[in-house]
Amino acid sequence: MKSESFYRKLFEEKKGIIENKLSDLFINNKPGSLYEPCSYITKSEGKRLRPLLVLFSKKATSGNFKNAYNAAVSVELLHNFTLVHDDIMDNSDKRRGKTTLHIKYDLSTAILTGDNLLATAYSYLLKDCKENDKSVLNTFTKGVIEICEGQSLDKEFETRSDVTLNEYIYMINKKTAALMETCCSIGAQLGGGNEKQVAALSNYGRNLGIAFQIQDDLLDITADESEFGKIIGGDIVEGKKTYLFIRALEKAKGNSLKELQAVIKNKGIPQKHIKKYKELYSELGVIEDAGKEIKKYTGRALNELKCILPSEENNMLTWIANSLIKRNK
Amino acid sequence: MKSESFYRKLFEEKKGIIENKLSDLFINNKPGSLYEPCSYITKSEGKRLRPLLVLFSKKATSGNFKNAYNAAVSVELLHNFTLVHDDIMDNSDKRRGKTTLHIKYDLSTAILTGDNLLATAYSYLLKDCKENDKSVLNTFTKGVIEICEGQSLDKEFETRSDVTLNEYIYMINKKTAALMETCCSIGAQLGGGNEKQVAALSNYGRNLGIAFQIQDDLLDITADESEFGKIIGGDIVEGKKTYLFIRALEKAKGNSLKELQAVIKNKGIPQKHIKKYKELYSELGVIEDAGKEIKKYTGRALNELKCILPSEENNMLTWIANSLIKRNK
Repeated sequence: MKSESFYRKLFEEKKGIIENKLSDLFINNKPGSLYEPCSYITKSEGKRLRPLLVLFSKKATSGNFKNAYNAAVSVELLHNFTLVHDDIMDNSDKRRGKTTLHIKYDLSTAILTGDNLLATAYSYLLKDCKENDKSVLNTFTKGVIEICEGQSLDKEFETRSDVTLNEYIYMINKKTAALMETCCSIGAQLGGGNEKQVAALSNYGRNLGIAFQIQDDLLDITADESEFGKIIGGDIVEGKKTYLFIRALEKAKGNSLKELQAVIKNKGIPQKHIKKYKELYSELGVIEDAGKEIKKYTGRALNELKCILPSEENNMLTWIANSLIKRNK
Repeated sequence: MKSESFYRKLFEEKKGIIENKLSDLFINNKPGSLYEPCSYITKSEGKRLRPLLVLFSKKATSGNFKNAYNAAVSVELLHNFTLVHDDIMDNSDKRRGKTTLHIKYDLSTAILTGDNLLATAYSYLLKDCKENDKSVLNTFTKGVIEICEGQSLDKEFETRSDVTLNEYIYMINKKTAALMETCCSIGAQLGGGNEKQVAALSNYGRNLGIAFQIQDDLLDITADESEFGKIIGGDIVEGKKTYLFIRALEKAKGNSLKELQAVIKNKGIPQKHIKKYKELYSELGVIEDAGKEIKKYTGRALNELKCILPSEENNMLTWIANSLIKRNK
């Protein structure tokens, strides 16, 4: 493997290209009432992880990044579509430190902006599709449907008190992991990968996505507030059924169990109780459990890469998986 | 031309096939929290005009309806996606006599249902796409984007007092006519129509769509309430800037002008004043003007059909255009 700085530089270089493409996307488009909010959201800072998965999966199968940048932009648009609509559904005021669209503009604008981002995602994907890329479009569409199903389940879980860990994993499979899988699958297909390569990269993306979501749940309670960019413990304040919460509920007994059931009953907790629940999570060992799960799914993701030839790009995907474990936001 | 009853029977027969396909679409799909509302909206009664435009445009170019039923279902799903999201934006409680989705369920469910209908529309369109149908998908995607732009303009117009008739026509071109054009274009492309045929059928759909929307505006004030299925004058009660209203504003002087400006200022009128405004529209001749415009655009639509060979299917599209003029709801 090359040095850490080699991979980071390549990642940042490709990220820069995506950022540039995104910032030019809606310039001067009319009507402004639709395209100004489209620009606002696509120019917001983000990891740009999903477009980079497209690019590096393309490179892993074809040896180059050619004719994949539009597809990469496409998955970021799809991701932004989900963020805009999810923020409405979750009543979120802030996203990546910026005011969310439905607050900055209004509900109608946010709904329409999301809709238009999804349609624009298709138009960008089509730019990189050759005549025979019906399967790329099917993969993408399957991804969108899974994301809707996942978000629907997530909302369903809000009103249920008996969500199991299996159900939770099933939900994040759809809500978060399906998109990562879609990115890698599209990249591999555009790169002309064979069936085995497409399957391996799809599975890599799927497992990476599950690890990513559990890590998100974990960071919400363990991250350093100054680096994290939002309040620690937000999930439990809102009474979200995260990996940690459901696992804690499984393990807790007596008073601890009552404390957790109170979160469900009261649909969250006051901020001043965050510390108490963080301690409870530690006592129950669920922070450790989450760490193990993240390693397990990351390991599965890395294992899939062995099926495809070892190469620099393979190592790039290895590096991404390993970096995500170490992330602090 | 064949008899009226021949065309009506063919129309109803094909409509029945579409209805059957729609009613089977989401059966037993999970999660129910997403697919039950999907079924609810797609099973609601509708004209099913758009899928029939796909089918008859396909027949006009290829001589048969083969491999176009999924594409036909697709445009109806797209149409339903717009209805669900528009009803949220317009705060509408009822649609086709039934409770709207965001009222029957909730806001989140309605947003997600719309999103999922759009994605499912793509998956159905893809079923009828052969390997080389990238242009069909581009046409469809361009249609979705135009619809978003049109709805955005429509919302923009709500807060403006100086909307011109040209701007209004531009808006309904996108909001309503783009979808009708998309239907005809997709049908013609799937039928293997040549460039001239695709262009002619696209223009037919576009002009039909403009006539259709002005007719909608007209029916809102002139229809028979028992047949119309909703309250007469609803548009002016809500202060909507319809063809009739903008045209009236152009023509009115003195007191009449003040009466119309009051509608803008007060964002609508009380129901008891509907009769007065209907009389004002009559005096100003805008009901007559609307009728002329509908005939003008319908004439343009029919004129496009002359470019393609005269055939029974051509006559079916002629019949549709002529029937729409005579519709009462």
